Amino acid sequence: MKTIDGGVCAAQGFTASGMNCGIRKNRSKFDLALVYSSCRASSAAVYTTNLVKGAPLLVTQAHLADGHAQAIVCNSGNANTCNADGPMIAEKMAEAAGNALGISPQDVVVASTGVIGQPLPLPPILSGIPHLKETLSSQGHLDACLGIMTTDTIPKEIAVSFSLSGKECRIGAMAKGSGMIHPNMATMLVFITSDVAISPDLLQKALSTDIQSTFNMLSVDGDTSTNDMVVILSNGMAGNTPITEENEDFAVFMQALNTVTVHLCRMIAGDGEGATKLLECQVTGARDLSTAKTVAKSVICSSLFKAAMFGADANWGRVLCAIGYSGADVDVNHIDVTFRSSKGDILVCQDGHGVDFSEEDAKAILLEKEVITAIDLHAGSASSCAWGCDLTYDYVKINGDYRT
Amino acid sequence: MKTIDGGVCAAQGFTASGMNCGIRKNRSKFDLALVYSSCRASSAAVYTTNLVKGAPLLVTQAHLADGHAQAIVCNSGNANTCNADGPMIAEKMAEAAGNALGISPQDVVVASTGVIGQPLPLPPILSGIPHLKETLSSQGHLDACLGIMTTDTIPKEIAVSFSLSGKECRIGAMAKGSGMIHPNMATMLVFITSDVAISPDLLQKALSTDIQSTFNMLSVDGDTSTNDMVVILSNGMAGNTPITEENEDFAVFMQALNTVTVHLCRMIAGDGEGATKLLECQVTGARDLSTAKTVAKSVICSSLFKAAMFGADANWGRVLCAIGYSGADVDVNHIDVTFRSSKGDILVCQDGHGVDFSEEDAKAILLEKEVITAIDLHAGSASSCAWGCDLTYDYVKINGDYRT
Repeated sequence: MKTIDGGVCAAQGFTASGMNCGIRKNRSKFDLALVYSSCRASSAAVYTTNLVKGAPLLVTQAHLADGHAQAIVCNSGNANTCNADGPMIAEKMAEAAGNALGISPQDVVVASTGVIGQPLPLPPILSGIPHLKETLSSQGHLDACLGIMTTDTIPKEIAVSFSLSGKECRIGAMAKGSGMIHPNMATMLVFITSDVAISPDLLQKALSTDIQSTFNMLSVDGDTSTNDMVVILSNGMAGNTPITEENEDFAVFMQALNTVTVHLCRMIAGDGEGATKLLECQVTGARDLSTAKTVAKSVICSSLFKAAMFGADANWGRVLCAIGYSGADVDVNHIDVTFRSSKGDILVCQDGHGVDFSEEDAKAILLEKEVITAIDLHAGSASSCAWGCDLTYDYVKINGDYRT
Repeated sequence: MKTIDGGVCAAQGFTASGMNCGIRKNRSKFDLALVYSSCRASSAAVYTTNLVKGAPLLVTQAHLADGHAQAIVCNSGNANTCNADGPMIAEKMAEAAGNALGISPQDVVVASTGVIGQPLPLPPILSGIPHLKETLSSQGHLDACLGIMTTDTIPKEIAVSFSLSGKECRIGAMAKGSGMIHPNMATMLVFITSDVAISPDLLQKALSTDIQSTFNMLSVDGDTSTNDMVVILSNGMAGNTPITEENEDFAVFMQALNTVTVHLCRMIAGDGEGATKLLECQVTGARDLSTAKTVAKSVICSSLFKAAMFGADANWGRVLCAIGYSGADVDVNHIDVTFRSSKGDILVCQDGHGVDFSEEDAKAILLEKEVITAIDLHAGSASSCAWGCDLTYDYVKINGDYRT
């Protein structure tokens, strides 16, 4: 497997485009994106568990009920959530995209991200879609990626190639992380494209399995968005023997998919709102997977831990504290904690008690842009990893200074 | 019932004192407190649910096993948690206090708050306790309160008087909220004293019941401390007919206790780390109490909601979002949200959708020091209240700038 360029256009048959259609007042920022597959693709998706769901999610869910789709239309600048006319607007978006592309509106995935509770204006979208259709290109992946960004500071793309039954296959993706236009809605959107031939059932199985150890282990601020979704379209144009059972090809596909999703998790966490660094919590020695995940997520979500990491403070008491209230059944007297980065690693807690360590060395390790907190529970062989970011002044600023 | 002065010394028979014994390097800040009842008192307590528990909690738990205590010794500046010698140190504290007061060490409640994972030096405490014993006074409540503070910006005291079987009774209390010396351990400690005659069993029942709607509905940052405890001593000196069953007197006692604990909850929330305002979330119309509490706590704990309140931003989407992911089974299309303060109230969301409102009026309401978010779920008659504070730059500063 190797990493390649091309984002959502890396897989055969996929083109994309992006533009500013006028939802955003700042015309230099894109706010609309289109992704198109030249043939109908198997599709699968997972959605936020928030009971308050953006209207586009409900429409997309209905459209993907038959396991197929051919295009994605997504706007930023407005989440189209908590609006009485939301579902109608989302349907109109799909209809406009379908008409422009000459495909059924039922085969269009719709997504929106941005401020909630404000009506999404349809005219800019309706006038923008024909232009997006005209400019679809295999080079359009970055424009599309720019079109779905809100307060993301960097576009998030990735693509890999690998081989299945002698055919070269590709999976590409783009994501927006947790950020907002007017800081109003932390949303994560991930669109994955692939040219692998795979049945909708197995595609859903692959995605649903993968997110348990990837996107579900990612936290910026513990607030679950109303608009999160991860969608994958796989159009079969690679010409591989179609994957219709959980065979070796399925395992290779899962591996490639995981490479893509882990990469995006790390990009989203590192570009979390106001973040100065990517935090990774690696738990080993857990009695079972559930314990490992619970501990990793509790630490990565702790505001006190996140603030300490912002200050490059080797405050391992925060880690122990977060493990202790995680709800996981652990022996707190057998926990080791090590901080690790490109500057080295340092053991700060052994058997639940502090050990002597050099504050200077710890500071140097924690000042890096990527910091790993390694926790050994000494109770078994299960492990897990969670990603997050530090809690900074800018997080408060972004989320407190709305409309001022 | 009326509010009176005197804090933990308001109830008959209670004296207190506080001092700097040298745990803190800044000698102008107190770090040790003693509270004494002239006779043995019924006692009850509740403790943090964190699996990582401070050594003093374990010692106090053992000492209160017989339902009685006569004194409280508490230091700030060091939590005596995650130290191998912690239990021994905590026992020595109790022993020193017991010896100085001429009572059994088993009747001494021990508590510590401050940095964790650093050994608590015993000498300053051993040399300080005799002085504390000498200076015990019915005027010493504020000194004692100062002795348990960490980054609290205001001392937190309250006392009420009320009548039981023709006798005047009192309940007083002091608390420390979530703050730290070297910002390291968010702890809440509450010590309540009373001269009511009540059996240990019913005292425990009163406390355990009360905290469900008071301290358990309080959140500053979602991090559950290793050292939280609430202890009540009730020495019977008021001379009321002893409460030994859940009769009318018990109800009056519960009411008085609740007045004290709600007052402390509001003080702790309003003085949360870095907080500029007290947030109260009032949920009404819930189908049951559990739903009401789940919704209230989810909103009050949301980082995005808290940051929006810091910015005085009427961002009701944050409220809906937090309700949606709370896990409570609610109909999101029947939720009303109103913001309220001394400047008036404003409806911002009706039936789950935004309504037109004056941004200017909303801003004026949200700029106040105490803001209520009122949520009506229109599904029943259960209600609940939760307290918290806004998320500010100073929260990040306090918790990120440790040791720098």
